[in-house]
Amino acid sequence: MQPYRHKVQYYETDKMGITHHANYIHWMEEARVDFLDQLGFGYDRMEAMGVGSPVISVECRYRAPSTFPEEVTVAVRVARFKTVRIWFEYEMKKADGTLVCQGRSEHCFVSPEGKLLRLDKACPALAEKLTALAEGAE
Amino acid sequence: MQPYRHKVQYYETDKMGITHHANYIHWMEEARVDFLDQLGFGYDRMEAMGVGSPVISVECRYRAPSTFPEEVTVAVRVARFKTVRIWFEYEMKKADGTLVCQGRSEHCFVSPEGKLLRLDKACPALAEKLTALAEGAE
Amino acid sequence: MQPYRHKVQYYETDKMGITHHANYIHWMEEARVDFLDQLGFGYDRMEAMGVGSPVISVECRYRAPSTFPEEVTVAVRVARFKTVRIWFEYEMKKADGTLVCQGRSEHCFVSPEGKLLRLDKACPALAEKLTALAEGAE
Amino acid sequence: MQPYRHKVQYYETDKMGITHHANYIHWMEEARVDFLDQLGFGYDRMEAMGVGSPVISVECRYRAPSTFPEEVTVAVRVARFKTVRIWFEYEMKKADGTLVCQGRSEHCFVSPEGKLLRLDKACPALAEKLTALAEGAE
Repeated sequence: MQPYRHKVQYYETDKMGITHHANYIHWMEEARVDFLDQLGFGYDRMEAMGVGSPVISVECRYRAPSTFPEEVTVAVRVARFKTVRIWFEYEMKKADGTLVCQGRSEHCFVSPEGKLLRLDKACPALAEKLTALAEGAE
Repeated sequence: MQPYRHKVQYYETDKMGITHHANYIHWMEEARVDFLDQLGFGYDRMEAMGVGSPVISVECRYRAPSTFPEEVTVAVRVARFKTVRIWFEYEMKKADGTLVCQGRSEHCFVSPEGKLLRLDKACPALAEKLTALAEGAE
Repeated sequence: MQPYRHKVQYYETDKMGITHHANYIHWMEEARVDFLDQLGFGYDRMEAMGVGSPVISVECRYRAPSTFPEEVTVAVRVARFKTVRIWFEYEMKKADGTLVCQGRSEHCFVSPEGKLLRLDKACPALAEKLTALAEGAE
Repeated sequence: MQPYRHKVQYYETDKMGITHHANYIHWMEEARVDFLDQLGFGYDRMEAMGVGSPVISVECRYRAPSTFPEEVTVAVRVARFKTVRIWFEYEMKKADGTLVCQGRSEHCFVSPEGKLLRLDKACPALAEKLTALAEGAE
């Protein structure tokens, strides 16, 4: 899996001269979408299967600032997977290797009507891939 | 009609130390929603009547910067109204009277399915109010 | 201390029809600024004293969605305070009492040059207030 | 010059299911930064020369919606250039050629202290390039 690359934008900075901390939550989403896309389960395919994965919790620990116009890479991994829930972890770094932040997000799976889904029923092929990735992560 | 008040937030600033220019487009939306609410046609009521008013064009001329934690007032007026289109104008000022920016937005009216609507058919009570306001504006 | 009130804006929603999860990090910041302002230590005063308080970590657990044009109240409390670090906790609720989310943020104190500060040296009056609030919180 | 490519992000959509209109102002900025970078005058070089180019006015006419996860290309051109002012025009299209929106922004040139600059004095090499591009545009 290729890490995701995000160019810090001018509008993402704040008056301290650095990336405003809330933007890292956006980049976690960008990287997660890209990760699932690389796995072959992009948003369009997931939507066609009727599977959404809303965020249940999110956290981020800031290690070093980034700023415009730097590029930040976001490495994503499946930290844990259960049939009804998944945890992703994120590590963001600058080109020189500086660790920018570490994040984590937790998601469930829902139908278009918002009903909770078991992923092994709703999308067994993805559930298998995520199980393998989560085992590799431990 | 009371002007809308917006407190500039830290996350709305950029590395120049001032409000990033794209945020004024957000504040025009905030003020427009508040204006229609004061007119008695808040979003919930409009939605219940099945009338949306998407933005067709927007413009903003920046006169002086604002920054966190200043308060900016946004005066809204109906510049022009036709049965199928409306133009709002916005004037933003700081507490000391400094003119921050002048904006303009153009909207049509649509059904929940995205079909263009004549407002005098879809919501005659609002159409009458807007006609009166637009005449006063000339 | 009065809880902070935030009106959900249209531009804060996403295609799921609800507030996008990253915005809650913004509202935590809005509420924290307001909390310190109520304490008598607004941003201007802190800046004049040369004390900044960057975010070291942030987390948020989502309990129920909110959406435009609802109002959300954000209750802030000092969960813990040490001379070099502070933890805030946030509880967001809708008008009907529905718990929307629970958040937490951790901050250090820095000089304008980014040097770490002890708050009991840099601003003893605020350190005293925060100590009392943190004790009450336990 | 290569058009700039922006992938619409989930967090850029609103409850209408489409890209919120304020985001196009962000993409104009992204594309402008990229355009100057391709010209050999990226932000770092401009900053090192002490030349900023704040936005004086902005406008955008929306032609068709875009949404996550589409890709939008942004073509930028220099519409007009005077020694103290520049106008950029933007045309955004989807992969199938659909015109999404047309934008325009106006900028002056300033020193780090905010003093207005003549670009032919502050950065003659860029002034020459922009003059040639603007002439080609007429």
